[in-house]
Amino acid sequence: MEYSKQYTKHTRVELTSLVAAQMSDKRFQHVLRVETKALELAEKYHVDLEKASIAALTHDYAKERPDEEMIAIIMNSEIDNEIIRYGNNIWHGVVGSRLVLKELGISNQDILNAIESHTTGRSNMSELEKVIYVADYIEEGRNFPVVEEARKIAEVSLDEAVAFETKHTLLYLINNQNKIYPKTLETYNAWVVK
Amino acid sequence: MEYSKQYTKHTRVELTSLVAAQMSDKRFQHVLRVETKALELAEKYHVDLEKASIAALTHDYAKERPDEEMIAIIMNSEIDNEIIRYGNNIWHGVVGSRLVLKELGISNQDILNAIESHTTGRSNMSELEKVIYVADYIEEGRNFPVVEEARKIAEVSLDEAVAFETKHTLLYLINNQNKIYPKTLETYNAWVVK
Repeated sequence: MEYSKQYTKHTRVELTSLVAAQMSDKRFQHVLRVETKALELAEKYHVDLEKASIAALTHDYAKERPDEEMIAIIMNSEIDNEIIRYGNNIWHGVVGSRLVLKELGISNQDILNAIESHTTGRSNMSELEKVIYVADYIEEGRNFPVVEEARKIAEVSLDEAVAFETKHTLLYLINNQNKIYPKTLETYNAWVVK
Repeated sequence: MEYSKQYTKHTRVELTSLVAAQMSDKRFQHVLRVETKALELAEKYHVDLEKASIAALTHDYAKERPDEEMIAIIMNSEIDNEIIRYGNNIWHGVVGSRLVLKELGISNQDILNAIESHTTGRSNMSELEKVIYVADYIEEGRNFPVVEEARKIAEVSLDEAVAFETKHTLLYLINNQNKIYPKTLETYNAWVVK
């Protein structure tokens, strides 16, 4: 894929190299699968393909930064410090959007929002944000009990896929007695409630 | 039971009459069963029996007030208006604690907190609050799949009973795609998370 718009100064190949340098090969392969799925969803749901590619490639940019660095970035930013209690799973999207802006020079707000909200969702998600949120959940490497059902739903409705993912993520967290970040509940109340 | 402390100016019999006048007989019978269960738990876990009786008898005091009255009370109080979106299930404890203070003259803060938090719980529950929260869930008239398990847990640990109830209430709400009030998530993060 050739980027022709101005969302990044890099070619796609350069961007993949920059991303690969930030993470294990295992995670990088996941990132590439998220991109494949995001492009598929973007095409189906008429979302800008370049934005989908860039957001997918950069969504986990911060995931392997050391905890201390993540915490320092949060403490030195306008991000609510409350987030510190919730761990890397919640930090990496929020910190990632800041690092992608600062280190990669990507400043399109929709792309940055898609990075920021990819784990928790939020009440007002753009179509791009939904594509990244869902692609991350159903990329071909994923293998959990309801993933096939999630993939089928994503073929017919992006909004229903967001709702299904949010509901099952919450059920999973509760059944495992894991902490739940309030933003995830916001997404649930906005997208899942009948 | 004879009240000998000064939590209310009424006798227990007077208080039951005042409560009965506020609701259907069906709900009043539930209230009496909550009192029975609350006294049982209070005795087991060394909680003041008079406070348990009074809080149990008054916990649903506001439940049958008309929506318009509830909304007016919320709008004219310091209560966060955000609550208006969440319906009677969430209003009646919060409004109830205000009405019990104003109309019944019960001012003990622990009793009022137990009324206020009886549906959602909260992160810092007193032992009385836990007793009312759990008694309302497991009183003998309740009949749902996990109630027997909840009753068994309540016999050995009040905190575990709070955790079990919170977890299963959330699972129920999510499986039914019902709205979840953020306070319920606060209770989950405080009491259920491992």
